[in-house]
This record gives sequence, C-alpha cells and structure tokens, in this order.
Amino acid sequence: MNKQISINKLLIVGSVAYDSIQTPLSKVNKTLGGSGSYFSLAASYFTRPSLVAVVGDDFKSADVKVLANRKIDISGLKKAKGKTFHWAGKYHYDLNSRDTLKTKLGVFANFKPILSPAHQQAEYVFLGNIHPSLQLDVLGQIKSAARRTKFVGLDTMNYWIESAPAELANILGKVDILIINDSEARELTKEHNIVKAAGKILKQMSSPSPNPSHQGRGNKVLIIKRGEYGLLMFSHKRSVPIYRLSKNAEKLAHYTSKNLQIFTLPGYPLEDVNDPTGAGDSFAGGFMGYLAKTDNTSWTNLKRACVAGSVMASFCVESLGVKRLLNISRTDISKRLKDFKELTDFEV
Amino acid sequence: MNKQISINKLLIVGSVAYDSIQTPLSKVNKTLGGSGSYFSLAASYFTRPSLVAVVGDDFKSADVKVLANRKIDISGLKKAKGKTFHWAGKYHYDLNSRDTLKTKLGVFANFKPILSPAHQQAEYVFLGNIHPSLQLDVLGQIKSAARRTKFVGLDTMNYWIESAPAELANILGKVDILIINDSEARELTKEHNIVKAAGKILKQMSSPSPNPSHQGRGNKVLIIKRGEYGLLMFSHKRSVPIYRLSKNAEKLAHYTSKNLQIFTLPGYPLEDVNDPTGAGDSFAGGFMGYLAKTDNTSWTNLKRACVAGSVMASFCVESLGVKRLLNISRTDISKRLKDFKELTDFEV
Repeated sequence: MNKQISINKLLIVGSVAYDSIQTPLSKVNKTLGGSGSYFSLAASYFTRPSLVAVVGDDFKSADVKVLANRKIDISGLKKAKGKTFHWAGKYHYDLNSRDTLKTKLGVFANFKPILSPAHQQAEYVFLGNIHPSLQLDVLGQIKSAARRTKFVGLDTMNYWIESAPAELANILGKVDILIINDSEARELTKEHNIVKAAGKILKQMSSPSPNPSHQGRGNKVLIIKRGEYGLLMFSHKRSVPIYRLSKNAEKLAHYTSKNLQIFTLPGYPLEDVNDPTGAGDSFAGGFMGYLAKTDNTSWTNLKRACVAGSVMASFCVESLGVKRLLNISRTDISKRLKDFKELTDFEV
Repeated sequence: MNKQISINKLLIVGSVAYDSIQTPLSKVNKTLGGSGSYFSLAASYFTRPSLVAVVGDDFKSADVKVLANRKIDISGLKKAKGKTFHWAGKYHYDLNSRDTLKTKLGVFANFKPILSPAHQQAEYVFLGNIHPSLQLDVLGQIKSAARRTKFVGLDTMNYWIESAPAELANILGKVDILIINDSEARELTKEHNIVKAAGKILKQMSSPSPNPSHQGRGNKVLIIKRGEYGLLMFSHKRSVPIYRLSKNAEKLAHYTSKNLQIFTLPGYPLEDVNDPTGAGDSFAGGFMGYLAKTDNTSWTNLKRACVAGSVMASFCVESLGVKRLLNISRTDISKRLKDFKELTDFEV
C-alpha cells in the first residue's frame, strides 16, 4: 500500500522578518513581520498553508509558536546562522506613505529556497516579493517535479522592476496571476492610465514562453491594489479564446478594455486604521488561501477570493504588526464579508 | 379653472462660464463650461432641468442653443452687462491635478439669483458651488414660497470652507445631501480618516437648525467623490431614528461607522480620459436628474442615482469640455449602467 503523503495545497515562499514600526499613534520594536508571515497568517483562516522562508538564530521560539499556533506548516522555515531580516519604517501622519528607516537583510541576503518533495506538490503557489531569479528557481523546482500546480501567484516591487527587468519579464510569462500595486503597475509599463497599463501587463504575461510547459494554464489575471481605494482585477473575456490571444500577442488591440473583464472592490472603510504594514501580503494570503480552499479559479470565484483577501487586509491594518491576524473569529470574517456585499451592492 | 403652471422638478443654481482648457494632448479656447452647464446637460438625460445662472453680453447664441437643444429650461439664464465668467486651466500629465491659469468672474461676481415663481416650486434643488450666503438666499426663496421641496443638494469648495465657514455651517444644516470631494471633506473637518470625516459632516448636517422648518426632512446624506477612485456615500442607518439623532446631536458616537450605512462605487475604468473638467458637476447632474425622474429618495434609489451620476461623469471626461454630454444615446447609457453592475458584482 502506498503511504499517502499529507500535502498542503498552498505554498508561500517569502520573507519572515522582524519589523520595527512607528505610526503617528504607536510604535513597536522588532515584532514578527515579513511578507511570508502576513501571507500565511491570513491564508491560515482558509487552508493550511506551507511557509518556506529563512530566519536567523536570533528568531524567538515564541514567534515560531505564533505561526505554528495558526496551524501553518513551518517545516520549510529554515534557521540559518546570522540575524533575521530586520525592517524599520515610520509612517507619515496620513498612514498612506512611509519612510524606510532600516533594511538589514541578514540571513535573507543568502536565501536560496529549496523545496521539500511535499512542498513541490503544492497546487497553489505564491511567489512572494524576492529576487525574480529566485522566484524562477522555485517555480522550476515545482513544475519539473510534479506539474500538479494549478495556479501560481506572483508579487514583486519597484526595486526588482528597476534592477532585474529581464528576469522579471521571464517570470511574468510563467505565472497565472500578478498582484501588485498601482505605482508598480505604472512603473512596469511606463503607462499612467491604469487600464492601458493592465492591458500591457496582461500582454506581457500572455506572451509565449520559450518553454511552453512553464506557462500558466488559463487566462492570465492581474490584480492592481490601490491601498485604501481597494483594487482592480483584470483578465481577458472568456469569449476571446486564449489561443487567439497568444497568436496575436504582439497586437495590443487584444488587450484593450473591450476585451478585458474588470472587477473592482473598494477598500473596507475603516474608522481606525492603526498600521498598514502587511496589508498587501494579508490580501494575497486571504486571496490565495480562499482559492486553495475552494479549488476553483473561475472568474466568479476569483472575485470571491478578492473579497476574502480584502477582508483579511482590513483586519490586518486594525492593529500594529500581525496582532489582529492571530485571533479573528469565524463570525468576524463572515460579518465583514457581508459588509463588503452591502457596501457595493446596488440594483440597476 | 386653475391654470396648471408647467413645473420642472429639478432646479440647478450655478455658473455658466467660458472655459479655456489645456490637457497634455489637446486644448480648447473659451468653450461652454461652468458647473450649471455640466450639471444641467448631464441631468437632461433623465429629466427637464431648470438652469438659473448669469452670463455676459459676450455669451454666444450658439451656446444658448446648445443648452436649449437638450431641452434644458433656460428661462432662468440671465444676460447681464459685462463678460461671461472665464476660467482657464492646464492639466498635468496624469490628468489628476491642474493649475488654474485664470479666473475672471465677470458678471458672475454680482450674481444674485432671483427665482421665478415656477422655479420656486421645484421639488429637487441643487445649489451649485457659489457663495454659501447666496445658497442660503436661494433656499430661502424656495422654502418660504412653497415647501414642496423634497430634496436639496449642495456643492461647495475649499475656497468657501476657508473664507465663509459660518455661512457654510448654516447652509449645511438646511440641505439633504452634500456632494464634495475627499480633500474638501478633510479640510471641512480637519480629519484625515474619511469615515470619521463623514461622521463629523453628517453630525453637522443633522444639528438642529434655529428654524426647524428650514431643515431637511429625512436622514442626511453625504457623497464624497474620489476622482478616478469613484465615490463613497454615507447616511445613517434607518434603525437609528432621526429624532434620537437630533436629540443626541452633540454625541459623535452616533456618527460612527456602526451607525452609518455606507455605499461605494468605483470610477469607471476608462482607457481614454481626455478632460476631467466638469466630471463632478456631471456626476451631480446625473445623480439629481435620476432622483427627480424617479421621485424616490430611499437608500436603494440613492445608490442607483450614484450609478447614474457616475455614468454621466464617465461620459463627460471622454471629450474636451461638454462635447460628449451633447450626444449620448440611450443605448450608450444603458450599456454603461450594465458595465457598472458587472464591474462591481460578486456573490459571497
């Protein structure tokens, strides 16, 4: 009899860090942070995510427990000699912008994720904000091993757009969804109009890859986050067949609003925003967690996943650091899902 | 037998101007503009609005025709000796900000709107962006005459918030809806958080007036416009009775998100925005026009009116000046209404 390996459906490769955060009203020193922490904590409300990341020998066992208590699979959380990635930032009075005071990469500088056989079997994968060549490497480990992968998500940032454009272009053609913010979308395309920028990015994501087996399976999806204003999600209309799109990939005409399906979701109007750190990662975690749980990547379900992600992001910003993400009740979540529906619903 | 006076349901008091507009891609010199023009053109797709405004003796008969052709009642468009209000502005490359190059008030400087008996009977009234004491005066003419008025809307701007705060506070307590943008809401309340700012404004709007007959009838409504990000609409939950609110008007606790109903609508994601001039006035015109047409100010219908207004604003910005507002087909409008539904619809 074959022994069934217990496989977690969702894998996140990202950073686990210590954050020192100053807001106009409060501050905290070296608290658990990093994209991988926020992502996996948010995802843990929908599925059991596997976290692949590296920490230093200063990483506290209490913080390991924080992740383990949420039933996150931390078998891929590697401890290395050195210091845990440390980020320090100070928010401006309006909480919409911040200054980075310190970025000490520590052990994260030499992060080379090696996936275990179990992790290579993940069906839903999120490549957190690390060097595009590392993202490519992780994707290579997954795809050559199993080809079970159904849906790969990608994050990136201005730093990689500027410093590693070729590698970024390469990985963009191999993933199913890109989740970035509006300033990143504009920088990536040199296009201010957000619909045009989205068309250009989807075109780039849909361009034929040198190795077709490394391409995504279906229509490419782009989510553009707009902070307190919520998000826009773009994909092609299903009436435009994907094969036609890839044959005509050089024609931007296929990537105009006429051929795009677009979904918008507002930010949750919160009276008390305390700390925006990790909101984007919490969104991505809730989004991917919901997809993994429901195992459905239809447009209708992608929209629901956007709501789930936005709910998690709205909780995240209520407290300093990851605090609010540690203890959200089912009732809290379902109430806020309902709020989002009321907030946006109208009859025509 | 009584002679029935033909009464138009919707009255707008505002400015009619000549605008000189420069955008990164085009420019136009002294074209028909002003809040009253945009408002009444947008409203004309839903009802027959009456426009009360003043123009100079340089105002072209061709421009009178533009308004008359859309069946706008221009019996209140007064010609005075002097020049028509002239505004000149230049948009920055992103079309989100602009520099005002010229503001020559001309005959608008001495604008003292006197309503005809027919105009005093209007059931829906919009007080465009003029001095708050003039807005008060207009409201006095209407309310003392007929008390038929069902719903009064108000616009204002940073200039009046700074220069006429007492008069503005006075008129705020007498109208049913305030339609302003987010920076104005923040300036009015000295509050950055938009939900808290909304609570403060609704509180101010609900404070008992020295003359109760001059107060609005139902729950006060606030719309905060956010440019390309769309809008937020706020009011009290119907479960919180209005009499309790006015007794406790000093308690801000009643004006927190727990007691507010909130609706959001995104901006229509346009690929080609050519000129944002008049978008806010077109929104207000579509919004009030829809309310006047349907004669229903329930929360459900206010939401529909937001969509109608946003549809008109989205058309407005497609061309320079008022051009696109002159010739929109029924099909164009109903298609875009449907687009808004698709854009925002999801199941939970």
